[in-house]
Amino acid sequence: MNKLKRSYIREILDATNEETISFAGGLPNEKLFPLTQLKKATNKVLKSADALQYSKSIGDESLRKKIAKIYNEKFDFPTNENEILITTGSQQSFDMISKTFIHKELFVQKPTYIGALGAFKILNKSLNDFSDVQSLKTKISTDDTLYLMSDFSNPTSISMSQKERLIFASLLKQSDSYLIEDGAYSLLSFNGKIKKPISSLYEKSFHLGSFSKIVAPGLRVGWIRTSKENIEKLLIAKESLDLHTSTLNQMIINQYLEDNDLFEHIKLIRKDYKSKMQYMASCMKKYLPSFKFEKSKGGMFIYGKFEVDSLELAKKALEKNVAFVPSCVFDVNEEKSTYARFNFTNSSKSQIKAGIKTIAKILNKE
Amino acid sequence: MNKLKRSYIREILDATNEETISFAGGLPNEKLFPLTQLKKATNKVLKSADALQYSKSIGDESLRKKIAKIYNEKFDFPTNENEILITTGSQQSFDMISKTFIHKELFVQKPTYIGALGAFKILNKSLNDFSDVQSLKTKISTDDTLYLMSDFSNPTSISMSQKERLIFASLLKQSDSYLIEDGAYSLLSFNGKIKKPISSLYEKSFHLGSFSKIVAPGLRVGWIRTSKENIEKLLIAKESLDLHTSTLNQMIINQYLEDNDLFEHIKLIRKDYKSKMQYMASCMKKYLPSFKFEKSKGGMFIYGKFEVDSLELAKKALEKNVAFVPSCVFDVNEEKSTYARFNFTNSSKSQIKAGIKTIAKILNKE
Repeated sequence: MNKLKRSYIREILDATNEETISFAGGLPNEKLFPLTQLKKATNKVLKSADALQYSKSIGDESLRKKIAKIYNEKFDFPTNENEILITTGSQQSFDMISKTFIHKELFVQKPTYIGALGAFKILNKSLNDFSDVQSLKTKISTDDTLYLMSDFSNPTSISMSQKERLIFASLLKQSDSYLIEDGAYSLLSFNGKIKKPISSLYEKSFHLGSFSKIVAPGLRVGWIRTSKENIEKLLIAKESLDLHTSTLNQMIINQYLEDNDLFEHIKLIRKDYKSKMQYMASCMKKYLPSFKFEKSKGGMFIYGKFEVDSLELAKKALEKNVAFVPSCVFDVNEEKSTYARFNFTNSSKSQIKAGIKTIAKILNKE
Repeated sequence: MNKLKRSYIREILDATNEETISFAGGLPNEKLFPLTQLKKATNKVLKSADALQYSKSIGDESLRKKIAKIYNEKFDFPTNENEILITTGSQQSFDMISKTFIHKELFVQKPTYIGALGAFKILNKSLNDFSDVQSLKTKISTDDTLYLMSDFSNPTSISMSQKERLIFASLLKQSDSYLIEDGAYSLLSFNGKIKKPISSLYEKSFHLGSFSKIVAPGLRVGWIRTSKENIEKLLIAKESLDLHTSTLNQMIINQYLEDNDLFEHIKLIRKDYKSKMQYMASCMKKYLPSFKFEKSKGGMFIYGKFEVDSLELAKKALEKNVAFVPSCVFDVNEEKSTYARFNFTNSSKSQIKAGIKTIAKILNKE
């Protein structure tokens, strides 16, 4: 596979039509978007032309204060607004950090988020993957970078224990490397518990967050939490990318957070996603007994292992209008794999059942 | 000056307070934003959750069709929607084209737009400037890149004649290099006439456009017009940067264009800007007789020459709460200069008079 070929997931998104049952992308359930509340917020902020003017590269101050509050109150991670930089989604954060701080080796989990891989590859970063922390220990050194997701990792849905976080923090201290900790799913644990990020234990770190999974992705608003000094450096990259994130969209989210309880909204998402995950898991157990997986405890995906090559199976499934993602695309070297990722958040229960049954039929014919 | 130090203009923007009279940034007059119409458009598109969901990387199809129509009808440049890629403002276009196509020498006008310089520098492109087309001719060769603004260039406000466009087109054909033609101000000519872009005469080209100056910059929506094949390649960079431009903002602009006559709106902008330019020019002639300049025929700036170092003067002016931009920041090598750029679109006439008088006072004390 061409390393710079258009990302497989985006290709699937582009290829799907109204008849496709898609377990592929990472699309949130749009029925849960707080549409009415966002419309109200938008009408409020559009009373002033300021919402349509250029604005500061670091981002809206009120919004940065509200994000800092989430760190203080929910992540138990002392933070002020000068430690928050608004980005045009986490995807942009990868590019900015990459340009500014990644000048040596970069280590990623095997498998890891394809969007991060894409951003690192296009900037020609020297990519290495690791399967376990022990093997990483012997390789990583000063000013190298470690990229990981500690909560409900994409694609594996695995969340690190407190003990594992301490091990990573100690390894980082020892090696004096940078940490990019991607918290895209950190607030989506099904039991509502939020774990302390590794970044809170290690200063040379960037914690990435996004409103895409907890409010709405179409607004393209995310953030980086790091030291004030690092933000000063990142601003050069931010300005060169898009001057600043959409003023309107920042103000809409700020107003939405002002007028609503975000965590009450997140409760609804968690409940819906847990129920979808459980339904998908039960369909898989019933119709796909050869697919081995653990039930997810949060996030948006079920990850597991077929007995056959998952890329071949995914291609056949797409012909039958069912999309899922074979794990090879999440690997630095894109090796053959039997693993696959299923998104459960953007399909109805009847679609989940029908889609899983279609895959079962394909497997049973082989 | 540090080549990667935070852009001087953005620094000024960040440093200005409510008392600053700013001729510095490139802020459009926010009183002219079509606030009511955009609010109506927003309420229409927010009837559906689709406006808040992830969307295709290439951009909204209806919007791309409308932009293609502008090329066909206004620029006399045959274009279809497959030749339009939506970006998060022109600033992002520089990054995407840079990553994908600029692998050899890059040539820019002297002076040129600082935002483009920033985007090229952070990707370590090999930058060269040129003052006249003859000197360029001997230097540029196959797969090099030429970046320029043919209409109301930032900072000089110069617009190329038809003859000059033909000369550049012929030079490009001869050298087989890439053209990035930045059309940020192309629709803002004071006499309403729109010239054919050089890109329409040369295939290996990227014509950049933006809604920032003709609708509103806070939405961060721009585009690249190039061949379908080039767009396929650019999509890899687009995905790695922010997946796609804000779905909501694309749909707002699309709906706005659907329900309103953009070119009637642009007429209002042109009229206001022309009157502001003429007022600033008359103040300069009266209070700053030593400042030599030509009246602008479009765009947002007056560019001219002091008898003293313009960086020193700009620093003194900023202390007195008046901001303008010394031309050194628009140079690849940031040499000393007596030239300066004044924005006239975002100040009232009384501010223009007061600001120019403040600069006159500083000069008269010297």
